[in-house]
Amino acid sequence: MRKVAVIGIGATRIDEHWDKSLRELAGDAVLSAMSDAGLDRFDALYVGNMMSSPANQQQHLGTYIADWVGARGKEAMRLESACSSGSAAFRAGFIAVASGEVEIAAVVGVEKMTDSPGSEITSNLATAAHADWEVDQGISFVALNALIMQRYMHEYGWKHSDFANFSVNAHQNAMNNPNARFHAPLTAEKYEASAMICDPINLMDASPIGDGAAAVILVPAEHITRTGSFPLVTVAGSAAASDSIAIHSRKDPLWLSAAEKSSRAAYQQAGITPADINLFEYHDAFTIMAALSLEACGFAERGKGPRLALDNEIGLKGRIPVATLGGLKARGHPVGATGMYQITEVVQQLRGQGGASQVEGARYGMSQNIGGSGSNIITHIFTNAA
Amino acid sequence: MRKVAVIGIGATRIDEHWDKSLRELAGDAVLSAMSDAGLDRFDALYVGNMMSSPANQQQHLGTYIADWVGARGKEAMRLESACSSGSAAFRAGFIAVASGEVEIAAVVGVEKMTDSPGSEITSNLATAAHADWEVDQGISFVALNALIMQRYMHEYGWKHSDFANFSVNAHQNAMNNPNARFHAPLTAEKYEASAMICDPINLMDASPIGDGAAAVILVPAEHITRTGSFPLVTVAGSAAASDSIAIHSRKDPLWLSAAEKSSRAAYQQAGITPADINLFEYHDAFTIMAALSLEACGFAERGKGPRLALDNEIGLKGRIPVATLGGLKARGHPVGATGMYQITEVVQQLRGQGGASQVEGARYGMSQNIGGSGSNIITHIFTNAA
Repeated sequence: MRKVAVIGIGATRIDEHWDKSLRELAGDAVLSAMSDAGLDRFDALYVGNMMSSPANQQQHLGTYIADWVGARGKEAMRLESACSSGSAAFRAGFIAVASGEVEIAAVVGVEKMTDSPGSEITSNLATAAHADWEVDQGISFVALNALIMQRYMHEYGWKHSDFANFSVNAHQNAMNNPNARFHAPLTAEKYEASAMICDPINLMDASPIGDGAAAVILVPAEHITRTGSFPLVTVAGSAAASDSIAIHSRKDPLWLSAAEKSSRAAYQQAGITPADINLFEYHDAFTIMAALSLEACGFAERGKGPRLALDNEIGLKGRIPVATLGGLKARGHPVGATGMYQITEVVQQLRGQGGASQVEGARYGMSQNIGGSGSNIITHIFTNAA
Repeated sequence: MRKVAVIGIGATRIDEHWDKSLRELAGDAVLSAMSDAGLDRFDALYVGNMMSSPANQQQHLGTYIADWVGARGKEAMRLESACSSGSAAFRAGFIAVASGEVEIAAVVGVEKMTDSPGSEITSNLATAAHADWEVDQGISFVALNALIMQRYMHEYGWKHSDFANFSVNAHQNAMNNPNARFHAPLTAEKYEASAMICDPINLMDASPIGDGAAAVILVPAEHITRTGSFPLVTVAGSAAASDSIAIHSRKDPLWLSAAEKSSRAAYQQAGITPADINLFEYHDAFTIMAALSLEACGFAERGKGPRLALDNEIGLKGRIPVATLGGLKARGHPVGATGMYQITEVVQQLRGQGGASQVEGARYGMSQNIGGSGSNIITHIFTNAA
């Protein structure tokens, strides 16, 4: 396996892009990453997308986007693992380059969720849950997470307000990210007062959907002469794990075993421990997922995730900065694109391009992308160390 | 890159499986491949599927199927490139094992097209074509192929009846395949007399859809001691290429440039020429695609594909045996599973397990899987040579 470098990143703003089609969003991100890398070609394209079939009546996105960006003829495919599709595409591109099979890979995560004929978001999202054992019983994705959060609060004695800072911190960091969906500060009071969706999850516990695309260019690190004004960022760890799709099938619904497995494998590959991670782009689709991710990845003890939020150890100067450019909560969650937003943001931080959200002196950044309610979790560690 | 061996194969019959769900079909194929390999575990699962989102209201098939076959916790993902999804999954699994990232990979192609709430096949298939430039204009997938066939007959002077033997040969070979959808012989007269679908494509030019799954187990070849009663089959070549999705965007709609590119790359990797290929599991979704594939892969001159059928050079004892176990035409075409059926059949032949359809003395077998109307083509070459 060759060491792999991320030499280009690009992303669109997450928004309701009524003036842009799926291919235009993906194209903007890929061309921007190519321009950032200073390359005018690539050998293979890996596309992460969850719901273009129902939402846009278009599948076959590998070929579709390759052609649109002027790469007709190149190898192209789509990866799908629900909301972790973006990171699944990255991992496929990473392995292809690491193996020697591909020299220059482009990876893009894209989702066009609004203003499309098939934009019935709740039912589209539900295809990530178990059709027979969950969805046919009438449960939605937010309801599944509400069950988990309800149980978590009961087991460990947390109040709803204890989760406030996960969302407040995300909104604050998003102020510094021009690509974020929201640029509105949030207070703990506003968090508590927001509309209930599915008890105990209220509007400010939940991340917003949106349209967007984020892309990277990957090459073997050995080919790169470091001439830029920022350090070269390489992949130090990459791992994926699964769990049951249906939550009721798990021995412990309050433990993200796939996050534990994939983060442990990634730490081992990178030769580090959780204490070495300088920032963590986690999958805060709901505040309960923020808490569970911190625990499963070794940043908090079991049942103590909210403590990190209450003590603001998750802030930019805290013990483990998270959602440094807004996270899913405030940057937004265009589902199949999210993993690639997380990765481009980690690279920004390790390049020192985090702007007012910069985590000073960051050497190791981790991204973690969750498909389903913890049923497919992909973890990547990046570094700017030589 | 390590040499990769296919040590297990398994498949269900292609049929209208009203008594089996998508996960049961996939599970049957994976467990059968594991049993054939003599293994009770794998490290990662790659699923090829095109249309489970509309047809089965279930995405996230990697995790979904891994859990069903008792592999909860393992890495799992889905690959999609329309009708070449099966081979895309195989290629991802192949690269993962070749790279050293994965030791034992399971790959399954699965499609459940009938008896499902979302089984509107024509519109589901149309998501492989261009939503704006083709489908919104009212054209279906068979109509796109009819345009190509019409033009081909016009340019090169072939009559419709000249294509008969592509289908007659496929039906004859399917008689020897218990997994085939059809076990009914076809004559040239019946071919010509069958119902018109979209001029010049009639019912016997077109492959049938169906429900089915086919799977393999992949491991590094270096780990295998050959103790079985059949030779070890390894991957000698693997390549993928794309073309425009919309046919009108191509310089020459009668030339499968992605088939040419991917087959040339695969020949080069295997160190062979078309003359060394002993059997070719091609993508005869329509008879016109059979002719175009033979030409683009170097088995016939441009415009002369039907000559091979007329001279029966495509029969089991011919110059280039094709569809040896029925092909898409008679084995059936459960779209995202088809590439994996082709691959399991090539492995059967190279093991000498072709039964009455055995190609005697076969050393090199090729599979080629087409997504869209020639817009994504993945070619694999297998060998039983040491």
